[in-house]
Amino acid sequence: MENNKEIISALNWRYATKGFDTSKKLSEGQLNLLLDAVQLAPSSYGLQPYQIIVVTNQEIKEKLKAAAYGQPQLTDASHVFVFAINKNYTTQHVDDYANNIAATRNIEVSDIQGFVDTMKGTVESRTQEELAVWNAKQAYIALGILLETAALAEIDACPMEGFNNAQFDEILGLADKNLTSVVIAPTGFRSADDAYQHFAKVRKSKEDLFIHI
Amino acid sequence: MENNKEIISALNWRYATKGFDTSKKLSEGQLNLLLDAVQLAPSSYGLQPYQIIVVTNQEIKEKLKAAAYGQPQLTDASHVFVFAINKNYTTQHVDDYANNIAATRNIEVSDIQGFVDTMKGTVESRTQEELAVWNAKQAYIALGILLETAALAEIDACPMEGFNNAQFDEILGLADKNLTSVVIAPTGFRSADDAYQHFAKVRKSKEDLFIHI
Repeated sequence: MENNKEIISALNWRYATKGFDTSKKLSEGQLNLLLDAVQLAPSSYGLQPYQIIVVTNQEIKEKLKAAAYGQPQLTDASHVFVFAINKNYTTQHVDDYANNIAATRNIEVSDIQGFVDTMKGTVESRTQEELAVWNAKQAYIALGILLETAALAEIDACPMEGFNNAQFDEILGLADKNLTSVVIAPTGFRSADDAYQHFAKVRKSKEDLFIHI
Repeated sequence: MENNKEIISALNWRYATKGFDTSKKLSEGQLNLLLDAVQLAPSSYGLQPYQIIVVTNQEIKEKLKAAAYGQPQLTDASHVFVFAINKNYTTQHVDDYANNIAATRNIEVSDIQGFVDTMKGTVESRTQEELAVWNAKQAYIALGILLETAALAEIDACPMEGFNNAQFDEILGLADKNLTSVVIAPTGFRSADDAYQHFAKVRKSKEDLFIHI
């Protein structure tokens, strides 16, 4: 129960950090924690249909800030996480995953042919627009894992949708990789001056949020 | 660092549980932990544009199982979480949120008029289809928070997209509330017989998943 309290305390402690302390950077251990957690995030079929760009280069961060309507989190945070999905998602991605399963579990792809066919059927039945929505949703699960893990380790973050995707893709060279950015999260440490940390958290009441059947 | 290891250990321990132990139910404390965590999940602007149905009624769970292609998690798990979004998302939802902010922080809505207008502009600029995608993405953040919190407390879960939404909506009476189901997560405790718990976890390598800039 003590552990439960710590989890809820961490989720209460976190907030969408507007002002980061530019002098504080993630340690290697802190960065590895976030990378490990995002790597372990669940996704539909386990496909992990996304890549994550982790930006520390200050010149690039300045450009991202300009492409995010000047929001200071982009330059002031320690590490900017950019979640990107593939613009041309195909059964080749399923094959790559199948090969990874086979290698990891020391089996043959033919041993999981039914599962592979199911995944390919799903991919083939959807338009690229539908696949983009599906894959972006999976990225949002990973975003949730990133945010909770950060909070548990007293690392601040600011999930953000307000940025110019096309400009981000160009700045980060994503177009060449057939990737497009869907959501971002600057991470680092709150500034003592950020007033937002003192605002009472606003949430729907349990009665408004949950329906018990 | 001990804490970091516990987080990663929990994320490694979790898996999409196929076989639940029907004799084990979430305690009130365990359920409250999950409800508290989901309530604290972040969302765009903080709007929490979803409701969560928590199903324990066994007759209803039987019907849900039939509407989920017979997958046994629906009947065998202790509590089935169903994330639902509104089919007609309007500026009224923004007004409800604005009133909640004002009440929580003991201010007037007029004190945050700029923020309210920004949110309303976003809602008004999007079609219902675009709003549905946007709101579903927020639900997936909450799903990520649910799954990590469950894992940290050694509660099992199985995130699932494979179910008939229309049938779920009818069974749960969501249509009357203008809600529609987007993703579900049966929660409870793994059966000792579930072979999936022993399979090596398959994930993209760090090199394939992350791009450092």
